[in-house]
Amino acid sequence: MSTVSNYIDANKEQFKEELFELLRIPSISTSSEHKGDIKEAAQFWINKLKELDLDRVELFETEGNPIVYGELVTDESKPTVLVYGHYDVQPPDPLDLWETEPFEPTVRDGDIYARGASDDKGQSYTHLKAVESYLKSGEDFPVNIKFILEGEEEIGSPNLVPFINEHKELLDCDMVLISDTAMFAEDTPSITYGLRGLAYMEVEVVGPNRDLHSGVYGGAVENPANALAEIIAKLKDEDGVIQIPGFYEDVKPLSKEDREAYEKLPFDEEKYKKDLGLQTVSGEKGYSTLERASARPTLDVNGLWSGYQGEGAKTVLPSKANAKISMRLVPDQDPKTIARQFKEYVESLAPESVSVTVTEHHGGHPAITDLSFYGLQAAAQAFENVYDKEPFFAREGGSIPIVADFQKILGAQSILMGFGLNSDAIHSPNEKFALKDFYRGIHTSAKFFELLPDYS
Amino acid sequence: MSTVSNYIDANKEQFKEELFELLRIPSISTSSEHKGDIKEAAQFWINKLKELDLDRVELFETEGNPIVYGELVTDESKPTVLVYGHYDVQPPDPLDLWETEPFEPTVRDGDIYARGASDDKGQSYTHLKAVESYLKSGEDFPVNIKFILEGEEEIGSPNLVPFINEHKELLDCDMVLISDTAMFAEDTPSITYGLRGLAYMEVEVVGPNRDLHSGVYGGAVENPANALAEIIAKLKDEDGVIQIPGFYEDVKPLSKEDREAYEKLPFDEEKYKKDLGLQTVSGEKGYSTLERASARPTLDVNGLWSGYQGEGAKTVLPSKANAKISMRLVPDQDPKTIARQFKEYVESLAPESVSVTVTEHHGGHPAITDLSFYGLQAAAQAFENVYDKEPFFAREGGSIPIVADFQKILGAQSILMGFGLNSDAIHSPNEKFALKDFYRGIHTSAKFFELLPDYS
Repeated sequence: MSTVSNYIDANKEQFKEELFELLRIPSISTSSEHKGDIKEAAQFWINKLKELDLDRVELFETEGNPIVYGELVTDESKPTVLVYGHYDVQPPDPLDLWETEPFEPTVRDGDIYARGASDDKGQSYTHLKAVESYLKSGEDFPVNIKFILEGEEEIGSPNLVPFINEHKELLDCDMVLISDTAMFAEDTPSITYGLRGLAYMEVEVVGPNRDLHSGVYGGAVENPANALAEIIAKLKDEDGVIQIPGFYEDVKPLSKEDREAYEKLPFDEEKYKKDLGLQTVSGEKGYSTLERASARPTLDVNGLWSGYQGEGAKTVLPSKANAKISMRLVPDQDPKTIARQFKEYVESLAPESVSVTVTEHHGGHPAITDLSFYGLQAAAQAFENVYDKEPFFAREGGSIPIVADFQKILGAQSILMGFGLNSDAIHSPNEKFALKDFYRGIHTSAKFFELLPDYS
Repeated sequence: MSTVSNYIDANKEQFKEELFELLRIPSISTSSEHKGDIKEAAQFWINKLKELDLDRVELFETEGNPIVYGELVTDESKPTVLVYGHYDVQPPDPLDLWETEPFEPTVRDGDIYARGASDDKGQSYTHLKAVESYLKSGEDFPVNIKFILEGEEEIGSPNLVPFINEHKELLDCDMVLISDTAMFAEDTPSITYGLRGLAYMEVEVVGPNRDLHSGVYGGAVENPANALAEIIAKLKDEDGVIQIPGFYEDVKPLSKEDREAYEKLPFDEEKYKKDLGLQTVSGEKGYSTLERASARPTLDVNGLWSGYQGEGAKTVLPSKANAKISMRLVPDQDPKTIARQFKEYVESLAPESVSVTVTEHHGGHPAITDLSFYGLQAAAQAFENVYDKEPFFAREGGSIPIVADFQKILGAQSILMGFGLNSDAIHSPNEKFALKDFYRGIHTSAKFFELLPDYS
């Protein structure tokens, strides 16, 4: 293993230069004018995979952006790891808030600043360089490896799930390895083993067919803004418990292991409150802050609008009131079922003096990996070896819907081996990724491949 | 009286031309660039009053726009009527929706189209022409008359109340005559004897110090939009009864006469619902639609905003949520007291996990004129003579705060002798005033002055 490790250390500068080359490609998937850049980023990956002399390297066209695939299957008796990542990035706007050009990577204070540095070019590239470090230093690669990189993660992966469904055999694996999350804190490695799902709804309440004068009609005509507020107020009770019938039916209770993992996390609630400017945290009764934020389902108003929003006073009785309301889901809640239950409940709450329309935006399934899964144990040991610290196991409140899809379609659990930080400003100006974590990521990935056969 | 009536009929064309001259002056009070036009409109009134050889005509400067005053006091033993009106108008925007120029009056299908045609130049001018019709036809004017016209009605009359307070003796009168309201329907005269007051509040709920990711923080941090909805929901109960402690304390119950007047009104609830596109009316239990819309206090959300209002889904847990909420008040509710009660109640409803700020916009007192007041009876008879129809007595849901001020400062009840229609589109493009009601208005005013001494 020291050969591999030495190779990594000897090639740091080269690895960084390659990553910079990738970061210079503005492969923004949200805008069609970057189609050429998307192709260039996909081709960059194809070229790098080909340099490794794998068994198979292929660019799959889809109805949208192409999918990059590569594999090296040496021994069917060994575990097969499918590395997933994405080569597309968020748009860099607002541009004027960037201290340096978003597509000209720059190192400041040990951090690489560039769009995609952390999400997900820098993180996903660690695994390719780990594999290279075996193959180019003359070591046998200890497991079977497959790579899949998509170019539509930032637009909801519309073509990935169909692709996985059509290529189940090709993608057959024992686990999925993903580096697209954050560590618990700096120098504090953690493995994300749970993700929440999402159901995102929009509610429109319509009263009179036009805005009315609130003096002339107020009192006799239902006000849709009042009606909407009353509907929202009935979605949770005073203990923060969601009132939608059936909502908790499929929720797996927190296990003893879960709660123990939570207790181990070095969480400072005072610091958390101070950072957010809060007098007090709040939420569902009977759960801790971290449990509420990641292991329990939630319901949040994301947007609200009706009537007059300008300066001063306008005496309007609005015709319409709207809300965007989303729910974070936990295993085994199903987003479609929850969306239906939400719609039925909200419709049942509406007074007959208004009409209510409930529509559904995109959703996603929650996912969880068994804490006892051998891949997770091997990943933890790899982290400990490289960071000299036992990693924490944490559930995250956000959603990565593809994790549930891998589980459902391929039957494979995911290992979320994040090297980023929550302060990386992904999706914001001045996105960054610590250079040391780029290198430690490569080491951790290489270590993980080395250890995995022993744990299987 | 036939002399007066003949004079009116003989001078119709002249009266119309004069009104058109006044309507051509863009005396918009909401914008300082029309100061010159404001002066011109005030001077127009001064000139017309002077042509009548009254006892006294004077332009009073204020800190804002000037106040026009004129009086003819012939016999202290006769009733004194103070005519109130305003020479300023709303801005004409949006200009592109006007079919003809807003400040070039045009008659189409018997209606005068111009900004201010109904509100209030056309309506207030009827009384001046009624007085002229006595004085120029050689008849004695039957009562004492005073005119007061302000140029700041559309901006909340900031200088009128101080002026009244400083000129109580000058303005001393037995009643105030105002034509700035609408008839119940076309050819259906009505006298407004009640107006609602107003308390207009703004509520801001602040949670975390910045917008958060609802996946990462949702469940553990109070969502200010949810909290605001819960506060609003607690402002009324399921029967539409407002829950603010003390809110109904000063509300005068509807009298037998009130309810009888309401029952007489030719109100078609099916047509009302159809016009508004409603399946059903709604409101406070135990009251009819018209009572709810004019004789009972209300609470309406006028505006609501928080978080993301664009297309699609954004998973934000907003930092702030805001609402504009106003209450229409009825005698003897006091806007200041109600504003205080609202503030205290809303603050008491706020969970400690958010901070709530309640601020007050402008308010106004409710007002009511005794149905038995002789001035009201004389006005009713005048309407009946001219329109050949007994007028209805109606309360209006909107607010004209100055009516309560005249009552409070001068001890004078108001007679709201409206010649307009609700369809006049005041404050909107294509404002109009029926030419026939301009003439019938002059006749009704003249008749009122003739009858008044007999009723006193």
